[in-house]
Amino acid sequence: MLPQYETLSLSLEDKVATVSLNRPDRANAMNGPMWRELQECFEWLDAEPGVRVVILTGNGKHFCAGLDLGMFGEVLSEHSDPARRSEQFRRTVLRMQDNLSAIEKCSKPVLAAIHNTCIGGAVDLTCCCDMRYASTDAHFSIREIDIGMTADVGTLQRLPHIIPQGVARELAYTGRTMDAAEACQMGFVNRVFEDRDALYAGVREIALTIAAKTPLAIRGTKEMLVYARDHSVADGLNYIATWNAGMLSQVDLTAGITAQAQKTTAEYED
Amino acid sequence: MLPQYETLSLSLEDKVATVSLNRPDRANAMNGPMWRELQECFEWLDAEPGVRVVILTGNGKHFCAGLDLGMFGEVLSEHSDPARRSEQFRRTVLRMQDNLSAIEKCSKPVLAAIHNTCIGGAVDLTCCCDMRYASTDAHFSIREIDIGMTADVGTLQRLPHIIPQGVARELAYTGRTMDAAEACQMGFVNRVFEDRDALYAGVREIALTIAAKTPLAIRGTKEMLVYARDHSVADGLNYIATWNAGMLSQVDLTAGITAQAQKTTAEYED
Amino acid sequence: MLPQYETLSLSLEDKVATVSLNRPDRANAMNGPMWRELQECFEWLDAEPGVRVVILTGNGKHFCAGLDLGMFGEVLSEHSDPARRSEQFRRTVLRMQDNLSAIEKCSKPVLAAIHNTCIGGAVDLTCCCDMRYASTDAHFSIREIDIGMTADVGTLQRLPHIIPQGVARELAYTGRTMDAAEACQMGFVNRVFEDRDALYAGVREIALTIAAKTPLAIRGTKEMLVYARDHSVADGLNYIATWNAGMLSQVDLTAGITAQAQKTTAEYED
Amino acid sequence: MLPQYETLSLSLEDKVATVSLNRPDRANAMNGPMWRELQECFEWLDAEPGVRVVILTGNGKHFCAGLDLGMFGEVLSEHSDPARRSEQFRRTVLRMQDNLSAIEKCSKPVLAAIHNTCIGGAVDLTCCCDMRYASTDAHFSIREIDIGMTADVGTLQRLPHIIPQGVARELAYTGRTMDAAEACQMGFVNRVFEDRDALYAGVREIALTIAAKTPLAIRGTKEMLVYARDHSVADGLNYIATWNAGMLSQVDLTAGITAQAQKTTAEYED
Amino acid sequence: MLPQYETLSLSLEDKVATVSLNRPDRANAMNGPMWRELQECFEWLDAEPGVRVVILTGNGKHFCAGLDLGMFGEVLSEHSDPARRSEQFRRTVLRMQDNLSAIEKCSKPVLAAIHNTCIGGAVDLTCCCDMRYASTDAHFSIREIDIGMTADVGTLQRLPHIIPQGVARELAYTGRTMDAAEACQMGFVNRVFEDRDALYAGVREIALTIAAKTPLAIRGTKEMLVYARDHSVADGLNYIATWNAGMLSQVDLTAGITAQAQKTTAEYED
Amino acid sequence: MLPQYETLSLSLEDKVATVSLNRPDRANAMNGPMWRELQECFEWLDAEPGVRVVILTGNGKHFCAGLDLGMFGEVLSEHSDPARRSEQFRRTVLRMQDNLSAIEKCSKPVLAAIHNTCIGGAVDLTCCCDMRYASTDAHFSIREIDIGMTADVGTLQRLPHIIPQGVARELAYTGRTMDAAEACQMGFVNRVFEDRDALYAGVREIALTIAAKTPLAIRGTKEMLVYARDHSVADGLNYIATWNAGMLSQVDLTAGITAQAQKTTAEYED
Repeated sequence: MLPQYETLSLSLEDKVATVSLNRPDRANAMNGPMWRELQECFEWLDAEPGVRVVILTGNGKHFCAGLDLGMFGEVLSEHSDPARRSEQFRRTVLRMQDNLSAIEKCSKPVLAAIHNTCIGGAVDLTCCCDMRYASTDAHFSIREIDIGMTADVGTLQRLPHIIPQGVARELAYTGRTMDAAEACQMGFVNRVFEDRDALYAGVREIALTIAAKTPLAIRGTKEMLVYARDHSVADGLNYIATWNAGMLSQVDLTAGITAQAQKTTAEYED
Repeated sequence: MLPQYETLSLSLEDKVATVSLNRPDRANAMNGPMWRELQECFEWLDAEPGVRVVILTGNGKHFCAGLDLGMFGEVLSEHSDPARRSEQFRRTVLRMQDNLSAIEKCSKPVLAAIHNTCIGGAVDLTCCCDMRYASTDAHFSIREIDIGMTADVGTLQRLPHIIPQGVARELAYTGRTMDAAEACQMGFVNRVFEDRDALYAGVREIALTIAAKTPLAIRGTKEMLVYARDHSVADGLNYIATWNAGMLSQVDLTAGITAQAQKTTAEYED
Repeated sequence: MLPQYETLSLSLEDKVATVSLNRPDRANAMNGPMWRELQECFEWLDAEPGVRVVILTGNGKHFCAGLDLGMFGEVLSEHSDPARRSEQFRRTVLRMQDNLSAIEKCSKPVLAAIHNTCIGGAVDLTCCCDMRYASTDAHFSIREIDIGMTADVGTLQRLPHIIPQGVARELAYTGRTMDAAEACQMGFVNRVFEDRDALYAGVREIALTIAAKTPLAIRGTKEMLVYARDHSVADGLNYIATWNAGMLSQVDLTAGITAQAQKTTAEYED
Repeated sequence: MLPQYETLSLSLEDKVATVSLNRPDRANAMNGPMWRELQECFEWLDAEPGVRVVILTGNGKHFCAGLDLGMFGEVLSEHSDPARRSEQFRRTVLRMQDNLSAIEKCSKPVLAAIHNTCIGGAVDLTCCCDMRYASTDAHFSIREIDIGMTADVGTLQRLPHIIPQGVARELAYTGRTMDAAEACQMGFVNRVFEDRDALYAGVREIALTIAAKTPLAIRGTKEMLVYARDHSVADGLNYIATWNAGMLSQVDLTAGITAQAQKTTAEYED
Repeated sequence: MLPQYETLSLSLEDKVATVSLNRPDRANAMNGPMWRELQECFEWLDAEPGVRVVILTGNGKHFCAGLDLGMFGEVLSEHSDPARRSEQFRRTVLRMQDNLSAIEKCSKPVLAAIHNTCIGGAVDLTCCCDMRYASTDAHFSIREIDIGMTADVGTLQRLPHIIPQGVARELAYTGRTMDAAEACQMGFVNRVFEDRDALYAGVREIALTIAAKTPLAIRGTKEMLVYARDHSVADGLNYIATWNAGMLSQVDLTAGITAQAQKTTAEYED
Repeated sequence: MLPQYETLSLSLEDKVATVSLNRPDRANAMNGPMWRELQECFEWLDAEPGVRVVILTGNGKHFCAGLDLGMFGEVLSEHSDPARRSEQFRRTVLRMQDNLSAIEKCSKPVLAAIHNTCIGGAVDLTCCCDMRYASTDAHFSIREIDIGMTADVGTLQRLPHIIPQGVARELAYTGRTMDAAEACQMGFVNRVFEDRDALYAGVREIALTIAAKTPLAIRGTKEMLVYARDHSVADGLNYIATWNAGMLSQVDLTAGITAQAQKTTAEYED
C-alpha cells in the first residue's frame, strides 16, 4: 500500500515513516532516480494524513556518499550555444534544489539519523531536515570543493543558519572532515549515539514523542520555524497570529488541557 | 513614586530597575492583567530617564509557569460567525505579542534572572530580553505543544536567532525540558549561577556595569542589535552611520576618553 | 613588485598573501592611513589573480588596539551648522565602514590570526574576515562603549551572525573582556593555538589547503556564504543556480574528478 | 455617544463616519492636539464595529494648511547635549508618524475628500488614506522644502507608491503646486468633482457603496493592499491564503452568492 | 501533436501559441479542470522550445466570467474540526494560486487579448500576464467583494504594481466596473482596439515582433522584470550581471549586431 | 577650475552644473571612457559643495545612441576557460552598472534634458536620473533586445518603478520606439517642450528653483526617495526620523520660516 521506489525504501509504523536511501552497494550515492524520488516521496509524506513524523536514514555501510558523479553526464547539456547550455544547466540545478527542498516543504518534522559517511550532496540533503542525529562513526564533509565546484544545492544557503558562520566557512573552503563529536558541539547534530542501533532507537523515541502531539500544531510549528529563518521577527509575529486565527483547534486545545490536568495522554486526530 | 502594579513588583536602585513577576501563589502564571501590565511597565521603564538597565525576575518558588490557562476563556471570542471569531482572535494574539514586544522595544537592556520553572509563555517572555541568566535549578520547556497549540507569542520567531536551529526545532516539537546546563551550552542563557542568591548578585553586578556606561550609547547599541537581527548588514551599516550622525555625543565621548586616559570612571547624564 | 603601505606590511608566498598591521609601537592602533590602506590593500588582493587566500595578522606585541583616538580630530568636522556637521560625520563613518567592508568584498577567503589584544575597531575588523583563529593569549572586547559611543563600523551588525545573540549583547553592553577559550566556545574563533608560532603555522596550513582548491569555486563559495547571511534561502538558491550556470568550470570539474579518482592533487588555474 | 475632539469633528450615518479637521480659523493647520487626536480618533474608528467606511474632510475654507508652525517650539527639545536633543527629536518624529499611520492601520477604508489648500503635512496625511478625491479648486504642494526641511512624516515614503516616480521627485524638490486636474492625471486623486458639494455627494456615494459590502472582506482587502505595497508577491500570496483560511466567512459567502443570484442586496453583519 | 485540454484550446503558428479559455457556454467561468489545465498548459508552453510568445484569449461571447461558483463545493472541505478545515482550505488556495502563477513563471511573454467580460478570477488571471490588450467592449471588475469574500488568488497582490494605488483600492473596495478606456488610461491595458478582430490582429502583430527577437534574451528579460518587482534595485543589478555572465549568447549578439548593421533581420535559435 | 573630460563637457553656473555627453560625431554613443568618466564626474559633483543641481544633456544632433558597440571587444574577455570568462564578464557588467549608479548615488537632483535619440544604454542612463524632460522630437527605445541581448545595466530594474508595468514590458520585449508624447503620458518624462531651446530653458528654470532651496534638505529628500523605492514604508519612516534627528538644520529652518513669513527668499549655506 505504501508507494515503492527504486532508490528509497519506505516504511510506516505508529505514524512514523522511515525513508531509507537504498543504493547500499553505491554508498547510497545520489543518482538521477534518487533525486526525483526524494521529491516524490516527501510530497507523498506531506500529503498522507497518517504520517506525522519522518526519519531519514541510509541503508548499508554508509549514510550517503553524495552526488553520484555519473549524474554530470546527465546534467551537462550538449547544446552548441554555450549560453543556451548555461540556461539549461540553471534549470537543472533549480530542479535538483526543488528535489531536496521537498523535505523542507514537507509539513511534518524530518529527523535525519546519520551513520558513517555523510559528504557532499548528503550534507545538502541533511540541511533540509529539521534535526540531525548521528552515531559516533559519522563524519561530514562539504566535499563539492574537492571536485572543483561551488556547492549548489543548498548547503551554502542553509548551513550558516545551523552552525556558527566561521566554522561553516572553514568547512566549505577546506572540505575537511568534521567528526560526530565536533558536529554535535557545533550544533549540526543534536545528539551523538554510541552506535547505529542506539541511534535508531534514540531517534525513534524522539519521533514517537513528536507523533504523540497534535499533528496540526506540529505542522504549524514547522511552518513558523522555517518562515522565521527567512523573515523579520515582525513579519513572523503577524504570520503566526494570522495562522492561529484559523488553525488553532479548540478540539485539540481542549484535549491537550484536559490531558494535562488529568495527567493522561491526549489523542489527536491526524 | 514608582508605578504600582497588581501582578508585578517594581523597584529601582542605582539606576537599575527590577521587575518581578508577582503572582507567587500561581507560579507567576501570566493572566490577563499581567500581560497588560508587562507592556505598561516596560513602556514606563523605556520613558523614565532615571532607569538605565532592567532586571526581570520572578517572585516565589518559580520564575514563571507560562500562560494562565484561565485566559483562554478571555481570548476565545463568542461571535457566532467563525470567521469573525477568527478575526477577533487574531487581534487578541497581536495584542498579546505587543505586550511582550514592549520588552524588546524598551530602549534599555533587559536582563532576565531565571530560577526553577520557565515554561511556555515564560520562554516567549525571556526571548524578548537581551540576555538570560539562570540558577542551576532552572529548567525550560516550549510547553505550548503539550496543550495542543502552535506557540504564537514569539518563541518560534525569536528563539532560532538565539540557539542553534536544530535544537530549537527539537525543543519546539517535543516540548522536552532543557536544564540550565544545556541552556547555557546552547547559548540560551549566558551563565549559570550556583543558586538564586548568586544569580541575583551576579546579574546585579552585570547590570551595574552597564548602568555605569553612557546610557545614550547603550540605547543606540540596543537599537542596532535588534535592527541587525532583522535587516541585512548593508542596511544595518547605513543605519548606524545615520544614527551616530545625530546621536554620537561629544560630551560623552570626551568624558569617556578622558576617564580612560586617567583611569577613572566617567559620569554620564541619563 | 608588491604594493607598499605605510601602515601595513604585505607578503605573498605560495599564493597565500599575508597582510600585517604594522604600527607595532602603537599596538597597531588604526589611524587614518591604516583605514585607507586596508581598503586599498584588499582591493588589490581581490584583483590580483595570483592571490588565492589572505591571512591577516598584527606585527609586534598586540594584534590591534582598535581605533587610534587621534582620528577623532580628523573625523569630527568643524562646520558651524550642527546639521551639516552631522551630514559630514555620517559620510565619514560610511567611508570607514567601506574601508573595512573591502575585506568582506574581497573575493578570496581572509583568515585572521589573532594574538594578544584585539579590542574596539579590531573586533569590527576581524568580523569582516571569513574565519578567525587565536593564540591562547588573545583577548577581545567591544571597547567602544567605554569611550562613550555606540560602535559604528560593523561589530553590532556582523557579530550577532557569528556568536549567540545573548552573548553578543552582553559583550556589547558591558565591554567586558572575552578570552581566547571563551571566544572559541562561542564560535568567534575556530581554533585556539598554544602560542603565536603555532597560530601562524596552523593558520598557514589551513590557508595552503584552501589555496590548493580551484580558486574560481572558492570565490563562488565566498560569494554564496556572504549572500546567504543577508538573503532568504529561496533567493540564495536561485542565486547559486544562476551563478553556476556561467561559473561552473568544466575544466576544473574534470581536473577535480580525475584527481579524486586517481588520488592525486589537481592543479587549477587562478 | 460619539467621542468628542478639540480639533476634529466626527459624525456617523449609515455606517459611514466623517472625520473633519476642525480648526477652520487656522486653515486646519495641524497643531499638537490635532496630531494626537487624529490617532485617537482613527483608533476608535478601527475598533468601533458600527463604522465601515471613513471620510476625511476639512471644515472651512481650506482642507488643511499642513503643520502648525507653532509646533516646532513643542517638538524641538531643550536638552543641553545636542546628541540627547537629537534622540528626543527622533522620538517626537516617530510619534507624529504614528499619529498619521493610525489612518493606514485603521482596518476600514478611508476616503479623503479634499478642497482648496492641501499642503505640507496635509499631503503626508492624505497619503495615509486609501483614496483621495478632490474638487476643482484643490491644490497640492509638498511644502516642507520651503521651510528648509526634509519632509519627515510620510510623504516621501508613501507618495512614490501612489504617483509616478519622476513627478513625485519634482514635486518634492520644487515644492511647486499641483492642481486638481494634474493630481487626477497623475493618480494622486481618483476623481475631480465640480465643486465642494459635488465632491461630498460623490465621495459619500462611493462610501455607501463600500459600506454595503461585507465589512469583514473589506477589512481583509485593505490588509492585503497595504501588505502588498511592502512585501513580495510571493509573500503576499501566502498571506492571503493563510488569512482566508480563517477569515473567509461562509455566512457572508452564502449571503453574497444568494443575493447575486437573486439580484437582491445582501445584508452583512458588522 | 499539441496537448489537448478539456477547458482550453491551444494552437501554435509561427512560434506564437494561442491559449483560449474554452467554456464558451459558461462564459469561460473557471471551473476545477480549467484551474488545473491552466497550470499544465503553461508549464508545457514554458518547456516547449518551439514556443516563443503566448497569447491568451477567451472563446465565445466573453473573455472570462471568473471563478465558477460551483467550485466552492469543491474547495470547502467537510472536515469536522474547523481548524483542520481551515488548513485544507489554505492548501487549496495555495494550489489555485500556483495554477495561475504558472503564467508568470512561464519564461515566455504572455499577452492577454481581452474582450467583453473580464471579472473576478479573470482579473487575477490577467494580472499574471505580461501585457494586457483589450477591445472597446471590454470591462473589468474585481468582483470577489460582491460575493462576500476577499480576493485571494493574486489580484490584490499584483494589481497595485500595475495601476495606481488609489484606483486599485477603489476598484477592490467597490467592485465597480472599469471600461476599456479607463483601463487603458490607468495602465491596466496597453492599448484598446476597435473590435475583436482588430484586437486579435493587433496583438498577433506584437507577438510576432517579439517572436522575431532572440528567445533567450526575451526569457532573460522576463526573468529580470518579474524579479525587479519583488527585489531592490541593488539585488536586481547583481542578478542580471550574474545572469548575463552565463546567458549572454555571443552567437545571438553577433547575429543581432550584424543584422542591425546590414539592416536585415537576424535568425535566432529557440 | 572644473575638471576636464574627454567625452563629457561640464559647466557650472548659479550652482547648477550641466553635464553634456560630448561625442557628437558618434551620436554620443557610450564608449569605454564615457562610462568611466560618467562615474568620475558624478562623484565629483556629489562631493563639490558649490553644486546643488545637475542637468544632463547631449551635445549635437542626438541625446545619446546608447552603448558604443565597439565596447564589446573591450568587455568580452579572452580567457580560455569559459567559466573564468563568465566571471570576468560579470565583473565588467557590475562595474558598468556602478558607472551609471553614480548618478543615483550623487546626493543632488539630476535632471535629464533629452532631445532626439535616446536608445539602449541611454535609457539605462536616464533611468538613473531623478527627473526626465524632453523636446517633442525625442524618442526612446529599449534597444538591447535588437542586438540579441538582455539589457543589463539598469533599465529592467529601474524602469518598472517609473512607468506602468505592462508598458515597461512591452517596450522591453519589442524594442519599439516610444515618442515624447507617449513618454510623458506614461510618466517617463515629466514634461515635453516645444523644441530644444524651450527644453533647456524650461529645465534650467526648474533647476534654479531647486537650487534656491536649502541644499541640505534637498539631499535628504533625494536620499529618502531613493531609499523608499527599495524598502518598506515602515523602514522608510524610521530612516527619515533618524536622519532628521541629526540632519534637520535649525539654521535652515529659521531662515525658511522667516522668509515665508516675510515673503522673501531665504539664503542657505551649501
